Amino acid sequence: MKVAVLGTGMVGQTIATKLASMQHSVMIGSRDRNNPKAKEWIGKVPKLSLGTFAEAAQFAEIIFICTLGTGTLPALKLAGEKSLASKILIDVSNPLDFSKNNQPSLFVCNTDSLAEQIQRIYPKTRVVKTLNTLNSKVMVNPSTLTGPHNLFLAGNDENAKQVVKAFLEDNFGWTPTSFIDLGDITGARSAEMLVMLWIRLWNTLQNPVFNYNIVTPT
Amino acid sequence: MKVAVLGTGMVGQTIATKLASMQHSVMIGSRDRNNPKAKEWIGKVPKLSLGTFAEAAQFAEIIFICTLGTGTLPALKLAGEKSLASKILIDVSNPLDFSKNNQPSLFVCNTDSLAEQIQRIYPKTRVVKTLNTLNSKVMVNPSTLTGPHNLFLAGNDENAKQVVKAFLEDNFGWTPTSFIDLGDITGARSAEMLVMLWIRLWNTLQNPVFNYNIVTPT
Repeated sequence: MKVAVLGTGMVGQTIATKLASMQHSVMIGSRDRNNPKAKEWIGKVPKLSLGTFAEAAQFAEIIFICTLGTGTLPALKLAGEKSLASKILIDVSNPLDFSKNNQPSLFVCNTDSLAEQIQRIYPKTRVVKTLNTLNSKVMVNPSTLTGPHNLFLAGNDENAKQVVKAFLEDNFGWTPTSFIDLGDITGARSAEMLVMLWIRLWNTLQNPVFNYNIVTPT
Repeated sequence: MKVAVLGTGMVGQTIATKLASMQHSVMIGSRDRNNPKAKEWIGKVPKLSLGTFAEAAQFAEIIFICTLGTGTLPALKLAGEKSLASKILIDVSNPLDFSKNNQPSLFVCNTDSLAEQIQRIYPKTRVVKTLNTLNSKVMVNPSTLTGPHNLFLAGNDENAKQVVKAFLEDNFGWTPTSFIDLGDITGARSAEMLVMLWIRLWNTLQNPVFNYNIVTPT
């Protein structure tokens, strides 16, 4: 499948590399198609190429947005409404604001979310919020952790969520029982707000490699 | 021990009844000491009594605040600064706002929290945020759920957190490994924001009786 991964940071790099190893053709989208740092690691992996946000979005059947939260809407603007229309957009980004001196906060939350903003601006795009609640190592290899743990999804398009689940099962090894559907795209509020706990837990556990398992009565 | 439970709703009722069964003397604090609905269930349980917020706070060595989030600061104001000073206040409340027509949101979050507001207004009180992330059934009986699951704590006073942990172990059956310390009282932001996910999961699972287990690599 032709996949776009928008964002050249650790998350984009991990997802793109994993998908390339699964024989997908992956174009990394960057603001600068000659980004020297990105060129270096992309050049080492077969099936990976580098393009602008617009080129990557146009190329792809399915798109991951893995930029910093502050870069998400600008990157999608450069990708272009036409190239995003009708495609599945997996939104992995988090609206983190590191500009305050004391500690990270979110630049949108509570009564809105970054995923909802995307869905409002690109109504024809099938936005699925997922993977944003965990470290990229666990995203592409859930068995890094022992025992069951969960992955949340939210989105308005039921079919898109089914496609994403199957894609994450086939390529990353998630299992059908690991998914928890938080409902429509407003469910992204709770998934994005969970990042505040994620940061705090990282600090407590001194390790970003963990995930949540929802425990119910047997 | 003399315990105050401020709030006569389901959470206050469950905590107070459990503590009374453990032979603590528990005074339930209410706006109205003649609250007929509260009087009914309190009259049936030995070791329980009903008083005003002020009477309950004055009576107690340790205080639980279990009101609706909108009632938390008003209840504490009625309890009175003097009666709260130097005592441990276990803040179980959540800043939920049900006034909007579409779906619940928080009336404080992200860069502040209800627990921080309490701590700022009552600097001599030893505020510990905990228990707010789960159903009251699980609060007082963690073994309702099978397998390990976690309870978060946040607070500025290390000694108070140790006392609260021991109290929750002795009276509710939490185990030392179940606790995750989120650090100082600003950690309450993430614990309170988690309530948005809790509501969404309740809807998905069609059951409020669940909790989070943080899964790490072995």
